[in-house]
Amino acid sequence: MRLSAYFLPTLKETPAEAQIVSHRLMLRAGMVRQSSAGIYSWLPLGFRVLKNIERIVREEQDAAGCQEILMPTIQPADLWRESGRYDDYGPEMLRITDRHERDMLYGPTNEEQITDIFRHSVRSYRELPKLLYHIQWKFRDEVRPRFGVMRGREFLMKDSYSFDVDKPGAMRAYNKMFIAYLRTFERMGLKAIPMRAESGPIGGDTSHEFLILADTGESEVACHRDFIDADLVASDIDYEGDLQHLVDGFTDKYAATDDERDPAKEKELGDALVIARGIEVGHIFYFGTKYSKSMGAVVAGPDGEETALEMGSYGIGVSRLVGAIIEASHDDAGIIWPESVAPFKVGLLNLKTDDDGCVAACDDIYAKLRGAGVEVLYDDRPERAGVKFADMDLIGLPWQLVVGPRGLKSGTVEVKERKTGERPEMPLETALAQLTA
Amino acid sequence: MRLSAYFLPTLKETPAEAQIVSHRLMLRAGMVRQSSAGIYSWLPLGFRVLKNIERIVREEQDAAGCQEILMPTIQPADLWRESGRYDDYGPEMLRITDRHERDMLYGPTNEEQITDIFRHSVRSYRELPKLLYHIQWKFRDEVRPRFGVMRGREFLMKDSYSFDVDKPGAMRAYNKMFIAYLRTFERMGLKAIPMRAESGPIGGDTSHEFLILADTGESEVACHRDFIDADLVASDIDYEGDLQHLVDGFTDKYAATDDERDPAKEKELGDALVIARGIEVGHIFYFGTKYSKSMGAVVAGPDGEETALEMGSYGIGVSRLVGAIIEASHDDAGIIWPESVAPFKVGLLNLKTDDDGCVAACDDIYAKLRGAGVEVLYDDRPERAGVKFADMDLIGLPWQLVVGPRGLKSGTVEVKERKTGERPEMPLETALAQLTA
Repeated sequence: MRLSAYFLPTLKETPAEAQIVSHRLMLRAGMVRQSSAGIYSWLPLGFRVLKNIERIVREEQDAAGCQEILMPTIQPADLWRESGRYDDYGPEMLRITDRHERDMLYGPTNEEQITDIFRHSVRSYRELPKLLYHIQWKFRDEVRPRFGVMRGREFLMKDSYSFDVDKPGAMRAYNKMFIAYLRTFERMGLKAIPMRAESGPIGGDTSHEFLILADTGESEVACHRDFIDADLVASDIDYEGDLQHLVDGFTDKYAATDDERDPAKEKELGDALVIARGIEVGHIFYFGTKYSKSMGAVVAGPDGEETALEMGSYGIGVSRLVGAIIEASHDDAGIIWPESVAPFKVGLLNLKTDDDGCVAACDDIYAKLRGAGVEVLYDDRPERAGVKFADMDLIGLPWQLVVGPRGLKSGTVEVKERKTGERPEMPLETALAQLTA
Repeated sequence: MRLSAYFLPTLKETPAEAQIVSHRLMLRAGMVRQSSAGIYSWLPLGFRVLKNIERIVREEQDAAGCQEILMPTIQPADLWRESGRYDDYGPEMLRITDRHERDMLYGPTNEEQITDIFRHSVRSYRELPKLLYHIQWKFRDEVRPRFGVMRGREFLMKDSYSFDVDKPGAMRAYNKMFIAYLRTFERMGLKAIPMRAESGPIGGDTSHEFLILADTGESEVACHRDFIDADLVASDIDYEGDLQHLVDGFTDKYAATDDERDPAKEKELGDALVIARGIEVGHIFYFGTKYSKSMGAVVAGPDGEETALEMGSYGIGVSRLVGAIIEASHDDAGIIWPESVAPFKVGLLNLKTDDDGCVAACDDIYAKLRGAGVEVLYDDRPERAGVKFADMDLIGLPWQLVVGPRGLKSGTVEVKERKTGERPEMPLETALAQLTA
């Protein structure tokens, strides 16, 4: 993409309303634009990151045997009356009346809706287990939305739902999601720590929150160093095998949110203790028959008797992750995207757009990189070098390929790695080989 | 995907509420499930088709130089008060009050919102032209929703918006979308006929509807045979070149909706006349400064003077297309998917799941097809052959690979093409070569 044609309305000023760094950087980098309190439009650069995160979430859900569906945003209130949550949910639920005076709502989550689909579709234990998910916009009418996409009102969430005939089956589904979540966050360059959690309004008695570590995190957490060193992406996971030992390897270890910290245990850990700040990015719940009983979602078991479905639900904050990744990965100059979610892999900077040699060289490099399938943002604007460097650091692409007239004379370019700041000069061919590898 | 594990709740009975064939077949094939009037959940099979259609729309928008963004579903009412449409829109607009008693609405379209983004982002004619699009759920509170996803309340629409400094620029954008739309529908196996149309509540004075031909279409249309024979997918389109002659090639020819038919012209056409039924799947509008003037979206022109932006908008009914394609492509046995949008390319039928030889052969075929990147739905259920044939015809995959014990003895399988009904027997290797080609 040529920057001269790209819709990238960066801001020079830091917006006064933005209290945290990800919110500031997303506004400044032209990734999002506020529509109303806690509601954002995603501009081209932000949209690309959102889609990359969504893709990773989808791939890992699919790998774990989850099937994708899509439920609507607007739900009938009657479903929530069946579960008893219509009155319980409080003013965070956006309640709507349609033209025929029917009570509707903008879904904050989908337990009722998926249970309704399931009870009309599945009759026998032989059709189980099933794991279904969707990635859909949700609405929670936060009384004081803030922190940009980190605590918005309209937000994109991946939510999965598991259906089993008994509790051991439900725990197998829980374990699949537990492992899939760790892999998902790891692929985004994040270290996520699973911590035993309260179930809150979802209900149930087994639940884990996944917190990623970031200096600017919302709360202090403590955990065993093994969490930092674990690498699940490197290992082959057999989701149909027994995952319990893998899950135990995490849940057996010390990991505590601010409220739950235990000084005695932390002392024992010694050097293995890591204290850091955390941001919640995922939450998984086993809640058994809470919804299936109240809503009559049953199957015939092996003995012919009707059994209420054993269920769990599993959420990842897809739009929240855009902010969370920035909180975990930035510096004073701007965002530092992990390559897996970066909007483009390479920024190509032409330092002198009125120099025919520079233009020809850059056009050629641009064509070659794109031909090799590399996503490139090509700064072909007639701007000063300083402006280009600053904008490129701000938007945080992993690699910058810098082309100027002096280097070109000797056939060299500069390749800057955004993360380390290293910017070696090298022959153009070496640079192309490195960036297309 | 193994059918034994797939969430595919097909129906044996034809649902009484479904008046048209696409609605009946989508319910029977387990593609969607109604949530409330005009609001549907997309189950795995339907979701795959929806995503394929979305992908084709996206690829053709990108090819035409359109940049993807994502605006939220919930908009502030104040924006619509600026354009004057808040009061004009009527009860089809779903009006919402949030917890702070602010007037909001579920967007039925996004002219106001994109104009708002643009007026705060772009200052100079040098940043033009721009073409932006998003693919997002919309809501129109139809008084009597019906025909399934063809006239739902919550529906997925691709809407693009063009911004130019003058009318010739705006018409260039209009022409890009005109051609991109024809290519988009053609890639889905549809013949779309552009017809001059009323602008309705969007406003403006130039507008075309795109109607696809289907025996069960909602209205009768007439057009020149050249529309049927044109093949834009085969030709290389240079979107930066002059498209006017291409567009003229279509708009110069006779094409009329029911209301606009002209018996004299039709007589002149003779053999070149085609009379058919049509379904609207796209609509493009040039409306000049209607929104930019009322909302103050201006840029500094070359002379430094402020100029109101020249705009157009361009919609494709993404979820509606799922139904429209079925209306255009089905028979008594079920759906006939064009390969480009099919949920799977191949259905693999094991006719005897208690026969070890059949199971081994099918498992092997399944692995080989998947290894070659072919999407396969593998019917490994312990069901009668008749049930398997009927289900496979119903869900309409382009190819069926039928494996039975008799054929296997001589190393042959049957390959049925859903569209033609032809089902030649052939050696397994020939079948694999054909389906992976």
